[in-house]
Amino acid sequence: MEITLSEICERVGGRLQGDPDAVIRGAAPFDTATAEDITFAAGAAFLKKIDQTAAGAVFVPEAFDRGKTNLIRVKNPQLAFTIVLQHLYQPPRPAEGIDSRAVVGENTVFGDQVTLCPNCVVGNGVTIGSRVILYPGVVVGDHVTIGNDVVIYPNVSVLERCIIGSRVIIHAGTVIGSDGFGFASDGRAYYKIPQTGIVQIDDDVEIGANNTIDRAAFDKTWIKRGVKTDNLVHIAHNVTIGEDTIIVAQVGIAGSVTVGRHVTFAGQSAVAGHLSIGDNAIIGPRAGIAKSIPAGQVMSGAPEMPHRQWLRVQRIVPMLPEMKKKISELEKRLASLEGKD
Amino acid sequence: MEITLSEICERVGGRLQGDPDAVIRGAAPFDTATAEDITFAAGAAFLKKIDQTAAGAVFVPEAFDRGKTNLIRVKNPQLAFTIVLQHLYQPPRPAEGIDSRAVVGENTVFGDQVTLCPNCVVGNGVTIGSRVILYPGVVVGDHVTIGNDVVIYPNVSVLERCIIGSRVIIHAGTVIGSDGFGFASDGRAYYKIPQTGIVQIDDDVEIGANNTIDRAAFDKTWIKRGVKTDNLVHIAHNVTIGEDTIIVAQVGIAGSVTVGRHVTFAGQSAVAGHLSIGDNAIIGPRAGIAKSIPAGQVMSGAPEMPHRQWLRVQRIVPMLPEMKKKISELEKRLASLEGKD
Amino acid sequence: MEITLSEICERVGGRLQGDPDAVIRGAAPFDTATAEDITFAAGAAFLKKIDQTAAGAVFVPEAFDRGKTNLIRVKNPQLAFTIVLQHLYQPPRPAEGIDSRAVVGENTVFGDQVTLCPNCVVGNGVTIGSRVILYPGVVVGDHVTIGNDVVIYPNVSVLERCIIGSRVIIHAGTVIGSDGFGFASDGRAYYKIPQTGIVQIDDDVEIGANNTIDRAAFDKTWIKRGVKTDNLVHIAHNVTIGEDTIIVAQVGIAGSVTVGRHVTFAGQSAVAGHLSIGDNAIIGPRAGIAKSIPAGQVMSGAPEMPHRQWLRVQRIVPMLPEMKKKISELEKRLASLEGKD
Repeated sequence: MEITLSEICERVGGRLQGDPDAVIRGAAPFDTATAEDITFAAGAAFLKKIDQTAAGAVFVPEAFDRGKTNLIRVKNPQLAFTIVLQHLYQPPRPAEGIDSRAVVGENTVFGDQVTLCPNCVVGNGVTIGSRVILYPGVVVGDHVTIGNDVVIYPNVSVLERCIIGSRVIIHAGTVIGSDGFGFASDGRAYYKIPQTGIVQIDDDVEIGANNTIDRAAFDKTWIKRGVKTDNLVHIAHNVTIGEDTIIVAQVGIAGSVTVGRHVTFAGQSAVAGHLSIGDNAIIGPRAGIAKSIPAGQVMSGAPEMPHRQWLRVQRIVPMLPEMKKKISELEKRLASLEGKD
Repeated sequence: MEITLSEICERVGGRLQGDPDAVIRGAAPFDTATAEDITFAAGAAFLKKIDQTAAGAVFVPEAFDRGKTNLIRVKNPQLAFTIVLQHLYQPPRPAEGIDSRAVVGENTVFGDQVTLCPNCVVGNGVTIGSRVILYPGVVVGDHVTIGNDVVIYPNVSVLERCIIGSRVIIHAGTVIGSDGFGFASDGRAYYKIPQTGIVQIDDDVEIGANNTIDRAAFDKTWIKRGVKTDNLVHIAHNVTIGEDTIIVAQVGIAGSVTVGRHVTFAGQSAVAGHLSIGDNAIIGPRAGIAKSIPAGQVMSGAPEMPHRQWLRVQRIVPMLPEMKKKISELEKRLASLEGKD
Repeated sequence: MEITLSEICERVGGRLQGDPDAVIRGAAPFDTATAEDITFAAGAAFLKKIDQTAAGAVFVPEAFDRGKTNLIRVKNPQLAFTIVLQHLYQPPRPAEGIDSRAVVGENTVFGDQVTLCPNCVVGNGVTIGSRVILYPGVVVGDHVTIGNDVVIYPNVSVLERCIIGSRVIIHAGTVIGSDGFGFASDGRAYYKIPQTGIVQIDDDVEIGANNTIDRAAFDKTWIKRGVKTDNLVHIAHNVTIGEDTIIVAQVGIAGSVTVGRHVTFAGQSAVAGHLSIGDNAIIGPRAGIAKSIPAGQVMSGAPEMPHRQWLRVQRIVPMLPEMKKKISELEKRLASLEGKD
C-alpha cells in the first residue's frame, strides 16, 4: 500500500510544504519513522526538533512552517496521522466465509460476507449483518442481533437477546449480558432477582478485553454510540453510558448509574450506584465518585472533589505528620503564654 | 405464565387488600409496570406515590394500608416480588441433552437431564449431577465434581479436581482453579511453588463474570454455601469465604484470608493476606483492609477505620489546604504575641 | 514418587541432621505434614515449635540445630522445600498429541511432543516449539511464535503475530495482544489509532488468569524474562516490564510505562502512563504512582510517597477530625490571649 503526499493532503484536508509526488508507504512514530513513513509532531517538544526525524513527511499544526522536510499543515496532526495510518495499516483478518467447524443454530439470518471462524458458536434466532467477523471461541446466545461491520475477537460471550450495533469492536474475553448482581435478602440469605433485561450496544462502540457488561434487571443496560472502553472494565446492570464517552482500564460503574456524553473516566476510577455523571465531565484516575457530578466538572479523589482542590490536597497529605507536630508545638507555646498571664 | 393475586398471597404469605381473582402476568418496576404486572413499594418515596403506579398490584409493608390499587401486605416487599418474579420469569435455557459437538472424556459419570452445549469440553473422570447445563466454550478439567442443577455460562474454565456443589451458577469467562500466586525467591529470581490444592465451591453459590478463584497451594480455597460474587472478583489461594457473604465487583481478597458468614465487601475493596474478617462485618467501597476485622464491624477507608469515623475523616480531607493555612496563621499570630512579651 | 533424605540433601545442597535413608513421599505445610512428608520452618514462630510438626523431615536455616526430628539445614528453607515439591508434585497434564478436534491452520511448524487439546484453535503460519501444551479453548492467532515447554490454559487468546518465549505459563482466560487503547480526538468523537505492534513475552514468564496485555501501537509491548503476574492484571500498550518483576493481582500499568528489573507491584496498585519505575523498586498495595520512581525506592500511597512516610501519614489520617478540632480550640485560646493585650 502506498500513497503520495498530494493524495494524503486531499484525504486529510492539509496544506503541503514540499514534494507532492513523494511516496509514503507507512506511518510511524517521530523517532522511528523512516524516509518512506509519515509521522506527526503535535507538541512543542517535537516541533522544536522537527529536523531530527527521518520521516519522509510530518503532519504539523497549521501555524508551523519551519523545517527542511516535507510538512503537511493540518488542524489536528494526530488525527490526520490516524486517518493515514487507518488507510495504510489494515489489521489482518481471517478468511471470509462460514467455517465448517463453526456452530450455527436455527433461524439465523446473516448478511453478506459474514466470517464465522472455527469453533465460534451462534445460537438460535440470531440476526447478523454484513461483513461481520466472529473469531474462534466467540459464543453468541439465542436471539442476539448484531449490525454490520462488527468484529468480535476470540472467546467473547454475547448472551441471549443482547443487541449490538454496527461498526462495533469487542475485544477478546469480554462478556456482554451476564446477569446483573441483584439479590433480595431476608436478613440471612440472598435470593436471586431474575435479570430479565438486556445489554444494548449502539454503533461505533469499542469494548476492551475482559470487560463485563451486565444485562439489566428490567429493560436494558445501554452503551450509546461511540463509547470506547479499555480492558477489565465493569459496567453493572441498568447503567446508561452516553455517546462518545471514554472509560479507561479497570473502571467500575455500579448499577443504575447514568453517564452523559463525552465523559472521561480515568483508570481504576469508580462510581457508586444510582448516580448521574453530567456531559463532558472528567473523572480522575482512581477517583471514587459517591455523589452525582454536574456537566463539565473535573473531579478527582475519594471522596470526589474538584480536580484543582484535589491537587492541593494531594500536596498536603504527605505533610500530615509535620502538621500534627506543628499543632502540638503551637499548643505548648500557647500554654506557655497562657501560663505567663 | 399467569397467576392470580390469591395464588400470589398463598405463595408469599401475604394479606390481600383488593381483588383475589385479578390476574398477574409479569413483575416490573414501580414506574414501568402495567395493569398485568405486580410491583413493589418498599421505601417511603414509593409508598408516598402509591397511586401513581399503573401496576395491577403492589407489594407493600405490613403496616401500610392506603392506596386504591390492589395491595399485598408482606414482611419484605422486595423478597415477595423476587419470589413472584422467579416464578414468572424463567431465563431461556439451551435444549436439553449432550450435543454431538460437545467433547466428553473417559470415565465421566452424568446424572439425568444434563445439557452439554456445542463446543464445551469435559475432561476425564468428571462427575456431573442432574439437570446441569454447560454452555458453549465451558472447559471442565479432569476429575472435577459438579453437583445438581448447576448452570455454567460460556467460556468458563473449571480446572482439574475442583469441586462444585449444587444449584451453583457461574457466569461467563470465570476461571475456577487457576494456580495460586506462589513463588519462592533466591533474592534474584522466583521459583514456582506447585499449587497442589483445589477450589471447593459449596451449594447455592453464584459467581460473577470474569472472576478468578485460585486453587490452594495445599488443601483448598473454599467458597461456602450461599456466597454471591459480582464481576471481576479475585480470590487468591487458600482463602475461605463464609456462608452468605456478598462480594461486589472488582474486589480482591489476598491469599489465606478467612472471611466469616454474611460479610459484605463493597466494590473495589481489598483485603491483605492472612487476615480474618469476622461474621457480619461490612467492608466499605474501595476500603483497603490491612488488619483483621472483628465480627459485626463496619469498616471503611484505607487504612481501614470504623465507618462513622471515616465519614468524618472524608469530610475533612478536602479542607486540608485550609487547615494548613490556618496553622500558619496561628503560628504567625502566636509569634507576634510571643514577641510582645 | 519417593526420595530419601540423602537424595534431597544432594538435590538442594543441604546438611542433614538425622536418618539419610528416611523416605519422603510428599511435601506439605508445617501443621498438616505427616511422617512421609517434608516441610520447612523459615521464621522464628515455626522454629520455636519445631517438635510440634509430624513431618518426617524439616528444612531449617543453616544456623538452626535444635529439634528431635530429621532436619536439613539450608540457606533458604522455602526455596529448598519448593524444589522438592516441584520434584514430588507434577501437575496433571492432558494426553500428548494433536487431538483430532483441535483446529490447525496452514503453514504451521510444530516441535516434538506438542499437545493440542480438543477445541483449541491454531491459526496460519504459527510456529510452536517442543513439549508445548494448549488446553481446550485456547485460540492462537496467525503468525504467532511460541517457544518450548510452554503451557497455555483454557480459553486463553493469543492474538496475531505475538511472540511467546520458552517455559512460559499462561493461565486461563488471559488475553495477549488485544488492541492498545489508542484514539485520536477531534474534540467530539474518537478515531481508532490502529495498533500495529505486538506483545513479546520472554522466557520463564508466568501470566495469571484473566490478564489483559495489549499489543503496542507500534513496535512491541514487552514482558521480559522471569516476570510473574497474578490474576486480573492489566498491562497497556508499549509497556516494558523488566526481568524478574512481580505484579500482584488487579494491578494496572498504563501505556508506555517502563518498569525495571526485580520490581514488586503489590495488589491493586497502578502506574500512570509514560512513567518509569527503577530496578528493585517496591510499589505498595493500592499505591497510585503518578511520578517516575528511582531504583530501589519503596513507595506507597496515592499520591505516592516513601513507604515510611506513608506509614506515618496513615496513622494520622484517622486523627484528622481531632486535629481540626484542636486547631479551632487553639484559635479561640489565641483570640482570647490577643483580646487581653
